[in-house]
Amino acid sequence: VANLGYAACRALSPVYPGDTLNAESEVIGLKENSSRKTGIVFVRSTGCKPDGTKVLEYVRWVMVRKRDEAAPVGGDHIPRLPEAVMASTLGDACPRIDVAAYDFTLAGSPSRFGDYAVGEKIDHIDGITVEEAEHQIATRLYQNTARIHFDQFSAAQGRFGRRLIYGGHVISLARTLSFNGLANAFHIAAINGGRHVSPLFAGSTVFAWSEILAKADVPGRDDVGALRLRTVATKDRPCADFPLKSGNEDDSAVLLDLDYWVLMPR
Amino acid sequence: VANLGYAACRALSPVYPGDTLNAESEVIGLKENSSRKTGIVFVRSTGCKPDGTKVLEYVRWVMVRKRDEAAPVGGDHIPRLPEAVMASTLGDACPRIDVAAYDFTLAGSPSRFGDYAVGEKIDHIDGITVEEAEHQIATRLYQNTARIHFDQFSAAQGRFGRRLIYGGHVISLARTLSFNGLANAFHIAAINGGRHVSPLFAGSTVFAWSEILAKADVPGRDDVGALRLRTVATKDRPCADFPLKSGNEDDSAVLLDLDYWVLMPR
Amino acid sequence: VANLGYAACRALSPVYPGDTLNAESEVIGLKENSSRKTGIVFVRSTGCKPDGTKVLEYVRWVMVRKRDEAAPVGGDHIPRLPEAVMASTLGDACPRIDVAAYDFTLAGSPSRFGDYAVGEKIDHIDGITVEEAEHQIATRLYQNTARIHFDQFSAAQGRFGRRLIYGGHVISLARTLSFNGLANAFHIAAINGGRHVSPLFAGSTVFAWSEILAKADVPGRDDVGALRLRTVATKDRPCADFPLKSGNEDDSAVLLDLDYWVLMPR
Repeated sequence: VANLGYAACRALSPVYPGDTLNAESEVIGLKENSSRKTGIVFVRSTGCKPDGTKVLEYVRWVMVRKRDEAAPVGGDHIPRLPEAVMASTLGDACPRIDVAAYDFTLAGSPSRFGDYAVGEKIDHIDGITVEEAEHQIATRLYQNTARIHFDQFSAAQGRFGRRLIYGGHVISLARTLSFNGLANAFHIAAINGGRHVSPLFAGSTVFAWSEILAKADVPGRDDVGALRLRTVATKDRPCADFPLKSGNEDDSAVLLDLDYWVLMPR
Repeated sequence: VANLGYAACRALSPVYPGDTLNAESEVIGLKENSSRKTGIVFVRSTGCKPDGTKVLEYVRWVMVRKRDEAAPVGGDHIPRLPEAVMASTLGDACPRIDVAAYDFTLAGSPSRFGDYAVGEKIDHIDGITVEEAEHQIATRLYQNTARIHFDQFSAAQGRFGRRLIYGGHVISLARTLSFNGLANAFHIAAINGGRHVSPLFAGSTVFAWSEILAKADVPGRDDVGALRLRTVATKDRPCADFPLKSGNEDDSAVLLDLDYWVLMPR
Repeated sequence: VANLGYAACRALSPVYPGDTLNAESEVIGLKENSSRKTGIVFVRSTGCKPDGTKVLEYVRWVMVRKRDEAAPVGGDHIPRLPEAVMASTLGDACPRIDVAAYDFTLAGSPSRFGDYAVGEKIDHIDGITVEEAEHQIATRLYQNTARIHFDQFSAAQGRFGRRLIYGGHVISLARTLSFNGLANAFHIAAINGGRHVSPLFAGSTVFAWSEILAKADVPGRDDVGALRLRTVATKDRPCADFPLKSGNEDDSAVLLDLDYWVLMPR
């Protein structure tokens, strides 16, 4: 039915244009919902190169309909998941860089690892309006063929009445927008957790802001440091005042709340 | 004015990314229409690599305006065209495959040549909504610059009032949709005939279904067998009940009726 | 705020797929506007390959807001710019071609340098309707991230209420349309000047016409000759009557008025 959350996502090896990747998923947990009609399935997915090298690993939990509502489940099994990926495990997918040769002017910003402070919030300022053709083309690129993204005839009869934009595209847009303010965060090393807070539809304009949650050394690396970021994306709502909550509820403009580690030159 | 039909289309040699192709067309028949203002021209087109290797051959007939309506035509000449491409001529463009190494799991379906029965009908289920930007981008890819696909200003004054979607794009969409149910039909070997039953415009959702018309051995090949398929594409009309006719007329939702041969691993 | 004009643009060296290009811009002139709030900055931009080879050079003038309106400017400095690029300097980016091997049939037209006459006007006939998704995708290709092209939320509150289409895309569309009538003008050697006469928005259809302003030999070259062209692009206005002025004003349909040199086989 839907992806509910992500955890323990780590980039494990560099990927280059022309590489072929395969993915495998393993069910690592089950929890029946109180309705007994659906349940939550915990899955660990691993992406590999043909020689078996792991390039990415992550856990997500998805809501799934039970084939037979009356079927017994045999007790819940909820896997223990880390609150965040440990900084000491980051960097395997980032080749060592020569910081002296790194051109901060060409990169678009002089700001390095040392220039960011924990607690700092950054408005990424720019907005991107999404067209139906654009999200469909992007979603095809990832070979995601879920009908909710492509079939307006069926969507018109559904909950939203509209084609829903793929959550992976929302994450990509938030990452793109974050360039303005985090230009040298050139590598995503891990995703600690993420939540698709509300749906996005074509015609809306996406904005984003980020907060520096933590800073960490990467063991054995003096070329890069790790920033733990929270990036929040919104729709039709500029982020100069960092929208997040409205009372105890999520601000209705918030689309995405993503917690991840990036690497940045020192 | 328009493509009216196709016949005798055969893939003759494999094509790989980076190959350069040229096409030549030869007029092989003429028939004046009763209005004497237009006529039907039969054309055989051949696609070749630079070394002269033929990669594709097909016949189509197109309606063309006469330059001078009063000009005599000198009698009709209608070429004899096969009802279908003979199965014994299929397979030249399909390199021999190693079926033991063919990964049916990665391919997306366990169904092989032997699993399909003549007369079987398959609902391809999914729908794809077409945007103006998408069909225009796809049509440019094929270097088709016909104004009816690109020029809304002129189209607004024409028969449809809309930009007409290129028939080649409709065929591509039908082929794409057929993956769900025919995942291992990895090679189109021939097109026996085809008809663009009604026009498609942006905003419509395309669905499709297929029928297995025939099965055949390919001479000298124990790796693949040939399925003769009829694939019918519709607009804004799911295909669970295999729409085709409404009384003696074409069902008004039908866009395309295509008869072709595919190869599938045994 | 906006690009106002172009001059002295010359292609200096051939560029091939896979080449990496960098650009540098130098301020070569300043002129304060009478409002004293903004000024015009003259910039020379140069594109280079990594080995330093210059591939393109051009001058443009752009309107820029003053950081401090009260700041003194110290007198205007307006650079001397050529009315047109001299024909004797053209051709450095065009490798010598073998005209005997040039296939005019494949190129799409038999017309050569000698077939065009100064003063001749050509209606390029075709129209292209622009969708939001298309101009956004094209503009991203050039890494132009200006919000006016992408952010409908902000544009809705601005002067136009719409996303403005990037002027570079308008130039590309005019060039594309000019193929119908100038198919063998395979190389743009220089741009003498250009003016974005009015803004373009999605949903409009672009048409174009050209006039042959001059013809010139290229020193040391008997393979190609140079045509100086004026290409005018319009919106929602076919160009059979070569629209340009309405009284003393620009015709309201005119988008672009571009003056440039192309090379064509002799």
